[in-house]
Amino acid sequence: MFTVNAYGATSATEPLVPMTVDRREVGPHDVLIEVEYTGICHSDIHHARSDWREETYPLVPGHEIAGVVSEVGSDVTRYAVGDRVGVGCMVDSCRECVNCRKGREQYCLKGNTLTYGSLGEDGRLTQGGYSTHIVVTEDFVLRIPDGIGLDAAAPLLCAGITSYAPLRRWGAGPGKKVAVVGLGGLGHMAVKLAHAMGAEVTVLSQSLKKQDDGLRLGADHYHATSDPATFEQLAGSFDVIVNTVSARIDLDAYLSLLATDGILANVGAPAEPVSLNVFALLGGQRALAGSLIGGIRETQEMLDFCAEHRIGSEVEVIPAEKINEAYERVLASDVRYRFVIDIATLS
Amino acid sequence: MFTVNAYGATSATEPLVPMTVDRREVGPHDVLIEVEYTGICHSDIHHARSDWREETYPLVPGHEIAGVVSEVGSDVTRYAVGDRVGVGCMVDSCRECVNCRKGREQYCLKGNTLTYGSLGEDGRLTQGGYSTHIVVTEDFVLRIPDGIGLDAAAPLLCAGITSYAPLRRWGAGPGKKVAVVGLGGLGHMAVKLAHAMGAEVTVLSQSLKKQDDGLRLGADHYHATSDPATFEQLAGSFDVIVNTVSARIDLDAYLSLLATDGILANVGAPAEPVSLNVFALLGGQRALAGSLIGGIRETQEMLDFCAEHRIGSEVEVIPAEKINEAYERVLASDVRYRFVIDIATLS
Repeated sequence: MFTVNAYGATSATEPLVPMTVDRREVGPHDVLIEVEYTGICHSDIHHARSDWREETYPLVPGHEIAGVVSEVGSDVTRYAVGDRVGVGCMVDSCRECVNCRKGREQYCLKGNTLTYGSLGEDGRLTQGGYSTHIVVTEDFVLRIPDGIGLDAAAPLLCAGITSYAPLRRWGAGPGKKVAVVGLGGLGHMAVKLAHAMGAEVTVLSQSLKKQDDGLRLGADHYHATSDPATFEQLAGSFDVIVNTVSARIDLDAYLSLLATDGILANVGAPAEPVSLNVFALLGGQRALAGSLIGGIRETQEMLDFCAEHRIGSEVEVIPAEKINEAYERVLASDVRYRFVIDIATLS
Repeated sequence: MFTVNAYGATSATEPLVPMTVDRREVGPHDVLIEVEYTGICHSDIHHARSDWREETYPLVPGHEIAGVVSEVGSDVTRYAVGDRVGVGCMVDSCRECVNCRKGREQYCLKGNTLTYGSLGEDGRLTQGGYSTHIVVTEDFVLRIPDGIGLDAAAPLLCAGITSYAPLRRWGAGPGKKVAVVGLGGLGHMAVKLAHAMGAEVTVLSQSLKKQDDGLRLGADHYHATSDPATFEQLAGSFDVIVNTVSARIDLDAYLSLLATDGILANVGAPAEPVSLNVFALLGGQRALAGSLIGGIRETQEMLDFCAEHRIGSEVEVIPAEKINEAYERVLASDVRYRFVIDIATLS
């Protein structure tokens, strides 16, 4: 066991502070990663503040991790010291259930090991990437291809794969019309990815405030959902709608924008139940779906796709001491489009 | 124009009575059908009683029509006098919109012509199959293969295709587990069809009252949804759930029965909005979908599939004068599994 610098929460109500965490010794199948950048995901805030469940403190968030391998265990075959690597939301899973065997570890039936706040293989709670080093079994380490900066790569490990998986699953590509609801951390990735897949991309945002950005990121069209004419004009238009907004939206209105066979995929998760009219689904074999990150194999596929298409996240790099301020700005939707912590400032 | 015997509603509140309706002359592309059997669909009752919208009376219901061709127009190429044919929920559509061009006339963007209660090509309201003859353009006439009795075939034109379309679309077949919610007119067809497609079929019914029937019709398993243990035992089991129940159900409970990538397809339509928890969809890329009858090409495919697998509807044949009584029994779920009117009793 060894101790590394970190930044974490000591309770649900106090600001995050500098601290240290213990990492397990590098085992035969482990990779020790020197972290360079870690993205700030909205769900980090929910966890730090026990919004979703009562967490155990101290808690070090961070599941959008990019860095360099600094040591490998004796049986590691796929990584070597100096490799550029990433870690996302999971650091292990049962590897035996039907979902794990299909490479869909995010749906592990026995419950996977999350990057922070889960029971790790050493019997202690896992701690995330707001820290200088992390030890992860090589099967849950991703390779970050050359050509993507580590700062722009970090958010791909959660925001990127969360957007990529539903676009792939539901066939975004040439000849398909894709709408992205919300242009934030997830939404801006969904626009870039859907555009790179060859789809015709429309952003549906509350206002036209970010229109220039949206078009620059790859959107072909941009509409304000505060304008009722948007829903009239775009009725029956889209093959796929990716909803990145966690707040409740008027689902019936958005379902009416789907073409025949269209699917509305939620990647945000409103805490309250949602309501909809089944007739909106009947008229055109439409579906409402959900999607949660992606498996390890698919995450690697996404990273390779991003490298091929020169896609990274749009980031604002901050030193660790600005984490609390960044949290407030995330909550106020005041970020274009992802805060990334420069982990060198923790050393 | 010529006049034929029929049975229909004169208002939303009076019982159906014998009446006559006018049929248009047989045009160049038309087929005159001598109706032999017409199924009683639950939606006939909704229409006769103006449950869904204010109807125009007199109204002759009936969109599960089976009969024999007795005359063809000069340009008809696909049917000849004596052919066994059927007519379902639609008798025409715009034929030009993107959906019609794809053979999905049920989703015609300009609004298709329903078999009854729509504006027909002669400028009068269409009248349905509770009548001795009907005139339909050949493109909306289906061929009923030899080997299916016309009485057992009639309900295939609505109940059959309504069940068939979602099973095909969402991949019911060998290795797939399909659940059918509700064992009524639609549900009993869904069981027969899913079984014939090679899927492992489970009926989810309120009680075990119809268990023997369900197993005889092709179900492998039968569970009572009134027993909470059912939901524990079957959690995460099904690839496809076809919900044939129009009443509101606890969607979250049923969604929890879906395996990863599973889909719950509604073919019944509750009038009230439904509520669900998006987390149930996120956990496994699950989807909630709707499906409405099927296109003409797919309806023919379904009829051919039924002939190949010797599938017909389970019917109780009644004379026309029992229609009102049958309506009451349908509303009380007292039918195994479809009433079919012997149209000879109208002559």
